[in-house]
Amino acid sequence: MSRAWTAEAFYTQLEEPPTLAEYTQQARDFVARHVAEKRKVVLVTQSGGTTVPLEKNMVRFLDNFSAGTRGAASAEYFLEAGYAVIFMSRQHSQFPFTRWYSHTTNPLFDLLEEPAEGEETVQVSQAHVQGLLPILHAYHEAKRRGRLLTVPFVTVIEYLFLLRNMSEVMDPLGRHAMQYLAAAVSDFFVPADKLSEHKIQSDDQALTLQLEPVPKVLGSLVASWAPNAFVVSFKLETDEKLLIPKAERSLHKYGHQLVIGNLLQRRKFEVVLVEPHDHTWVRLPSTSAAPPHEIERDIVAAIAERHESWIASV
Amino acid sequence: MSRAWTAEAFYTQLEEPPTLAEYTQQARDFVARHVAEKRKVVLVTQSGGTTVPLEKNMVRFLDNFSAGTRGAASAEYFLEAGYAVIFMSRQHSQFPFTRWYSHTTNPLFDLLEEPAEGEETVQVSQAHVQGLLPILHAYHEAKRRGRLLTVPFVTVIEYLFLLRNMSEVMDPLGRHAMQYLAAAVSDFFVPADKLSEHKIQSDDQALTLQLEPVPKVLGSLVASWAPNAFVVSFKLETDEKLLIPKAERSLHKYGHQLVIGNLLQRRKFEVVLVEPHDHTWVRLPSTSAAPPHEIERDIVAAIAERHESWIASV
Repeated sequence: MSRAWTAEAFYTQLEEPPTLAEYTQQARDFVARHVAEKRKVVLVTQSGGTTVPLEKNMVRFLDNFSAGTRGAASAEYFLEAGYAVIFMSRQHSQFPFTRWYSHTTNPLFDLLEEPAEGEETVQVSQAHVQGLLPILHAYHEAKRRGRLLTVPFVTVIEYLFLLRNMSEVMDPLGRHAMQYLAAAVSDFFVPADKLSEHKIQSDDQALTLQLEPVPKVLGSLVASWAPNAFVVSFKLETDEKLLIPKAERSLHKYGHQLVIGNLLQRRKFEVVLVEPHDHTWVRLPSTSAAPPHEIERDIVAAIAERHESWIASV
Repeated sequence: MSRAWTAEAFYTQLEEPPTLAEYTQQARDFVARHVAEKRKVVLVTQSGGTTVPLEKNMVRFLDNFSAGTRGAASAEYFLEAGYAVIFMSRQHSQFPFTRWYSHTTNPLFDLLEEPAEGEETVQVSQAHVQGLLPILHAYHEAKRRGRLLTVPFVTVIEYLFLLRNMSEVMDPLGRHAMQYLAAAVSDFFVPADKLSEHKIQSDDQALTLQLEPVPKVLGSLVASWAPNAFVVSFKLETDEKLLIPKAERSLHKYGHQLVIGNLLQRRKFEVVLVEPHDHTWVRLPSTSAAPPHEIERDIVAAIAERHESWIASV
């Protein structure tokens, strides 16, 4: 029951997702273009959660909370900082740029004006043009210049296969590669051989679920898949006392460059950048009033600077 | 451990969601306007899934699959058929009309043209105006005429409290009320007193979860909350043999008007309308080629017709 999955066993025993080869090839081509341009490339894994199917037909699944703001916002600021971005994101979670006009909070439809009698144009109402223009421009620029590649996933199994292949194909970038692992990944999964074929029947009985721990792959990523990349992982905690100790333990164990620690309750206002011999808090001026800008802007600026020094240090 | 929750115990022992009173008042005002206009009103609960938090801070939760297309699409066709719609939907799931321009599959941003030098207007590119106009018009009409009220939820507990209050406030409509319960509701939940205060720690151990069955509230809805409404429930199965028998059992047990049965694999192409002495398949012409229209159009037409006869039959 409680066999602990190693990364190796996971990748050899589980079946590859059918779309893996296609996304891998797209990423390989994307990387090759940017190697030629000597551009830095960051893999942003999006914090949109990963699902754990409990049934083969996936009527029910275990999920983990995440609106996905951190990944989508960070991708925007990496593009602004001149990076090319591979955005590996949970399907239907937030997306760079379009996230500002979410269907539920600020639908673009509300900004579109129907044409006057006899006309045939639909335009954005004049009051909203100023707010929209820079976002729209940045979005179109990223597409026109081929700076943004999107790779979607749903389950934690898809996520783990993609993560391996994306980091491997980035190796030709050498130190110009960054892994920014913001995805909130499930710690548990149910292997295919234990999935129920049909929908679990509910006859007023309590349900007991047995979940197995997801293998820790950060060690393989740092040592084998992306030995030359600048690797940033995330720690989300709710208990403040555990935050820095757990981040330091993770750095020590895996040997990568940086852990971004955040507390669930204050993650929009402060994070701590934990490095091997140092830690630095990044804080917005106030947690009460409306913040002057998103904290992801400051996080990305701080990380990009460290990445630059690290490239120069060889 | 396996105490079975009755609807009564659930509503008296669990705490009301803080936003419940506000949404209830909005719905009461909405209904009053439509009673005055003698308009039919349908409550569409959206199939966007309900979450089951496993921790108080909700880092992890159990979820159930649903893109939410059925509810959002049905709401559009009910509006087209002259109904006013209370759309009770999972936050961030699909929304009537805007769903046609999803951020991931068909982003509106791709259709917007940046202004030429010296100009300050953003417009939809001419090639897409024809496709967009009828959808945009229907969306604006529903808003202008006050025909669409949106009520969001996330957890299964919020869903159950809202469902009770929404059906109760619709009672003044008499037979002009319809309940169209398309939400895919979790069958299990973890009561607040068993929720972990902090994030469940994962130390390479298997995780065992104990979940309790969600009370069946359809009986209370039919008998007490909405005794005059036309009530349509949904049955989603993966095993074809169980579909009609389970739908019939549900009708017999709760005494409502209609069950829409669908198989997970074929739900976009066929459903079966199960009534007390009859069942009728609704099928799109072909499951292979692109369907001529969405099946929800045919479902809503069939249901609206039955609702009309049922109103006339008193």
